[in-house]
Amino acid sequence: MSTSLPSSQIESFLHELCKAAAQQTLPRFRQSLDVSNKQASGFDPVTEADRQAEQAIRALIKSRYPDHGIVGEEFGTENPQAEYCWIIDPVDGTRAFISGIPLWGTLIGLYRNGRPFMGVMDQPFTGERFIGTPGTAHLSKAHKTTNLTTSSVTAPSEATVMTTDPNLFKGREERQFQALAQQAQLCRYGTDCYAYCMVAAGQAEWVLESGLSIYDIAALIPIVEGAGGIVTNWSGGDASQGGQVLAAANKTIHAAALEILAQ
Amino acid sequence: MSTSLPSSQIESFLHELCKAAAQQTLPRFRQSLDVSNKQASGFDPVTEADRQAEQAIRALIKSRYPDHGIVGEEFGTENPQAEYCWIIDPVDGTRAFISGIPLWGTLIGLYRNGRPFMGVMDQPFTGERFIGTPGTAHLSKAHKTTNLTTSSVTAPSEATVMTTDPNLFKGREERQFQALAQQAQLCRYGTDCYAYCMVAAGQAEWVLESGLSIYDIAALIPIVEGAGGIVTNWSGGDASQGGQVLAAANKTIHAAALEILAQ
Repeated sequence: MSTSLPSSQIESFLHELCKAAAQQTLPRFRQSLDVSNKQASGFDPVTEADRQAEQAIRALIKSRYPDHGIVGEEFGTENPQAEYCWIIDPVDGTRAFISGIPLWGTLIGLYRNGRPFMGVMDQPFTGERFIGTPGTAHLSKAHKTTNLTTSSVTAPSEATVMTTDPNLFKGREERQFQALAQQAQLCRYGTDCYAYCMVAAGQAEWVLESGLSIYDIAALIPIVEGAGGIVTNWSGGDASQGGQVLAAANKTIHAAALEILAQ
Repeated sequence: MSTSLPSSQIESFLHELCKAAAQQTLPRFRQSLDVSNKQASGFDPVTEADRQAEQAIRALIKSRYPDHGIVGEEFGTENPQAEYCWIIDPVDGTRAFISGIPLWGTLIGLYRNGRPFMGVMDQPFTGERFIGTPGTAHLSKAHKTTNLTTSSVTAPSEATVMTTDPNLFKGREERQFQALAQQAQLCRYGTDCYAYCMVAAGQAEWVLESGLSIYDIAALIPIVEGAGGIVTNWSGGDASQGGQVLAAANKTIHAAALEILAQ
């Protein structure tokens, strides 16, 4: 087992990774894109931004921490049993990206012994970098750092719920989502990874999504939890591998969501 | 009838108005907000940002152009029969605003003899200012100006459609929206006024909304049309007073949308 890495060292490496990724993503945002279909059965665009950013991130990790594991959306898994494992979604929200909407992000999570440890969501167009560390979370923007704290709202009737697309839910999941949305004060769509950062920033109380892969959620768990929130699956269990994900601002509103989802 | 105003003069005044509004909106974005309910029957938040920004805009217009008309979301209508009439939505997308999502905007339109003439959508958090003038449109960001041109996509199967919330449509409108969304390649929600600017920027082909007020659309028509697009109601008629609104990137994709909506 390798020596433990200080979180300050990881954080400065996360900044390096985000800068390298942004050099690949930002110049391609709002340009005409070579969109190819990853799945014959659906619309899942992969852009050059996605591929080039992941390659840039992987190259830096392999150079700096050659014994670490890497899981990436575009280029697969290497050494996943390592103590430290980096989990990358170079462009989360590719649909936002190809529509010109600045709610996509570069997600880089670091798991230690299989558990979420640190993570970053970088939105280079708005200049926002949301960072989660053990016990804290902060936003870095224009050389200014702001601590993130989740909302203290505990009543569903005062809560805002976010999800990317209500049509992604089918059958029982659709009924569960609608039940939550009906209890909430406000429902916002089209939010992708940005939604979790808004929970961390105290702007929303719930995010509900399903069908996530590990790289969709790995980076976001330390951000939400570092700011005081909770991320589980829809039954209150582990969400660190993806699947059904519920992010909540605090224990009380999290419990309220689980109760609504269980009905 | 007053002397005709040169569009360059209006444009520099639009920049002044946007700066004054941003001084009221931006410091209140992502702060705790005093949200009150405008309608007992629904959730329509009015923030101090909204009120203060409209007052700032009105004060400047009255001082510079005392004979012009003003229609504003928050403080009503003055002298609407004037040759030039300013139409203001100080914070379009108040729900985005209170959720921390940077897709809201300050909308300022100028009608001449009752017809859309010029308009601006200002998003001060991202630093984007979309401006429509007779025959052209451009984006001003970080002291850089970029001409805006709509998409040349003509096939619905390659089109992106945007709307704020699919649940805002009921009955026949819901069926019409679903018909359009099913023909499209991609559907994005939660976009508010930002959607029209993405059509102007060539990032999306359609925006479909209904129940709009004049101040929700007045500023956006010159932006979309200046970039080469078309804004009508769902039957191809005038949309400059609000109601059902269809924005489209070009004549062909506009006609295709009207045909789908008519079925």
